[in-house]
Amino acid sequence: MIEAASTATRAFGTGDMFQLLRDGRPRTRAELAALTGQARSTVATRIDALMSAGLISPAGEATSTGGRPPATFAFHPAAQVVLGVDLGATHARLAVTDLASTVLAELDAPLAIADGPDAVLGWVAETGQKLVESAGRAPDELASVGVGLPGPVEHATGHPNNPPIMPGWDDADVPGILGARFGVPVLVDNDVNIMALGEHRLAWPDVRDLFFLKVATGIGAGIIADGELRRGAQGAAGDVGHIAVPGEHDVVCRCGNVGCLEAIASAAAIAARLREQGLEANTPADVVSLVRTGEVRASQAVRQAGREIGAVLASAVSMLNPSVIVIGGILAEAGEHLIAGIREVVYQRSLPLATQHLRIVTTRTGAQAGVLGAAAMASDHVLSPAAIDARTASA
Amino acid sequence: MIEAASTATRAFGTGDMFQLLRDGRPRTRAELAALTGQARSTVATRIDALMSAGLISPAGEATSTGGRPPATFAFHPAAQVVLGVDLGATHARLAVTDLASTVLAELDAPLAIADGPDAVLGWVAETGQKLVESAGRAPDELASVGVGLPGPVEHATGHPNNPPIMPGWDDADVPGILGARFGVPVLVDNDVNIMALGEHRLAWPDVRDLFFLKVATGIGAGIIADGELRRGAQGAAGDVGHIAVPGEHDVVCRCGNVGCLEAIASAAAIAARLREQGLEANTPADVVSLVRTGEVRASQAVRQAGREIGAVLASAVSMLNPSVIVIGGILAEAGEHLIAGIREVVYQRSLPLATQHLRIVTTRTGAQAGVLGAAAMASDHVLSPAAIDARTASA
Repeated sequence: MIEAASTATRAFGTGDMFQLLRDGRPRTRAELAALTGQARSTVATRIDALMSAGLISPAGEATSTGGRPPATFAFHPAAQVVLGVDLGATHARLAVTDLASTVLAELDAPLAIADGPDAVLGWVAETGQKLVESAGRAPDELASVGVGLPGPVEHATGHPNNPPIMPGWDDADVPGILGARFGVPVLVDNDVNIMALGEHRLAWPDVRDLFFLKVATGIGAGIIADGELRRGAQGAAGDVGHIAVPGEHDVVCRCGNVGCLEAIASAAAIAARLREQGLEANTPADVVSLVRTGEVRASQAVRQAGREIGAVLASAVSMLNPSVIVIGGILAEAGEHLIAGIREVVYQRSLPLATQHLRIVTTRTGAQAGVLGAAAMASDHVLSPAAIDARTASA
Repeated sequence: MIEAASTATRAFGTGDMFQLLRDGRPRTRAELAALTGQARSTVATRIDALMSAGLISPAGEATSTGGRPPATFAFHPAAQVVLGVDLGATHARLAVTDLASTVLAELDAPLAIADGPDAVLGWVAETGQKLVESAGRAPDELASVGVGLPGPVEHATGHPNNPPIMPGWDDADVPGILGARFGVPVLVDNDVNIMALGEHRLAWPDVRDLFFLKVATGIGAGIIADGELRRGAQGAAGDVGHIAVPGEHDVVCRCGNVGCLEAIASAAAIAARLREQGLEANTPADVVSLVRTGEVRASQAVRQAGREIGAVLASAVSMLNPSVIVIGGILAEAGEHLIAGIREVVYQRSLPLATQHLRIVTTRTGAQAGVLGAAAMASDHVLSPAAIDARTASA
């Protein structure tokens, strides 16, 4: 039996050579020829193609051992921009970045996802175009758009799949609708995956196995394994909000099952419990405020939610053995109570080999995680070997 | 900010060119030059190096459009052999395969892992060398050895880490000890990871996301995500036997926690429950026999174990969204009862997006899964770009 190699039929092209330059270090034609094993003439042609496409630029001269010093070339991330869009239930955040995740313009606005795809995507197109302009860039400098949505997204199509808090959005052609408005490729994923991507890329680039948990109105996760986001077969990986919490629980979840993590430990569930105790807690933000003002019942409820979350995270640790767990979402702003409850249970319930080097921390990119991840997803697409091959072949 | 590309500093070498040939299809020098973009002279040099190393061989002439037809070259998997070793608690299975997983000789023998590393590894070295001989191959045709152990293995070192059923093995230098005996690289992993690898490679090569669950004396999993085995930060991924089963459980596990899957639903736990009912069930094999002879209490116990396993697999489905779940280990031989219990709970507890295309099946490679996976791990090492570069550079 012969095994198929995944690269079997793809040629090593201009896009592959570009990956060698993506770290930003200037290199000469001779260095690139040595690294790729390709003929000097081939390398020269490819450098010309990448220069024409604006993806690399001259980066001065290398030191010479005699004769004319050779020219160097480096990745030119300012050549184009991408738009990152992070849509939540009641707000939107947009950012224009260059191709290396440097933010050039950013905007945060209230927006009701329940207004449906026509209204919301129309607003995104209009506001996104203005934001590109306000970053001082022309419309044709926009290379792609990345979008995060607050619900399950089928990865192959970029369409929402029965999203519970997005009425009217089921199977909406988000890439098609926004693609027609922007005239560039549009990548779509769920909000937690893009948060995981943003946090990993900007705060933990050297970590290979990271588990990102968002705790807000709902609960969800994004999984980085061996350095890459893993989405599973349909893009539904990380959907941990409906995992049953170990122990005896009789809370019925909106999904119809009993004892789901989201029904027990989300910010919405905590707020409901605090209201039963007579406290004013209508939103996740109210829960955070109560904890910050020193309301003991709120702190205790958040810590208990941390323990329930910890019970499910212990399963994630046993299953995936991450080296870092990052807690994000608005409840991460409630301070140490949440994470203390989480740590208590994870370190007790998981085996030593998996926990001895495990760090459990709150997000460093905070409310920007999603929009930065959406922009990174868009850049990754533009800079992929296949996209660059297509672009430089037609140039 | 500039992102590091993982391939940034590796040259595209002979080993990379070999990957293009690994699918077994014959190719001409001109085809390889076109695929790699490299000069014809570079390709010719690399073909010579791969021929000298025995990794490729002439594969006849291509059809010609005129003039002398060009020679083709193809992967020559018979050039060398690897040894796969699957060690269980009370038995061992060894196989000699070529570099494309074709079995040339195989052996199954009782062996007590509790005899400790000196006795066991001494036996493995002696028996393995004889098995290579009985396959008609000389000792120097052995390229590498892959070993599966019934306990946690730290991936970076290949040393067992506090393995519960392997007294005397903690931190044993298995790669060092066997490497000294065989004189070739030795790769070590836990038994469930190599079973997942064997099952994926031989039965489901086109599936990208596969979850393999072994149900025997213990319970463990191997995770294939995006086509590759994912081991996590320390190699402990898939350690699902100590995940707490949702619901009320008071069984104390040998790990000290309460309600672990392994303490409730392993073949050992089922056997203990059947003994309490007065049945003769001392081993996992006894449980399988009782089910096969139509003992209703045994069938019911296995089906109930399936439901408990299903509750934890539902978490795995929510977390990882595999497209195939394979059930292996001796309890998979108990027929439909186990898998019926599993399916009942998984399809009820997981969300539709993750289950609509999910298949839950029993192993196709059966008792061979581990040894085939160990051999595949050994071949993968030998055929990796870096290993081939090192070998052809010194040739």
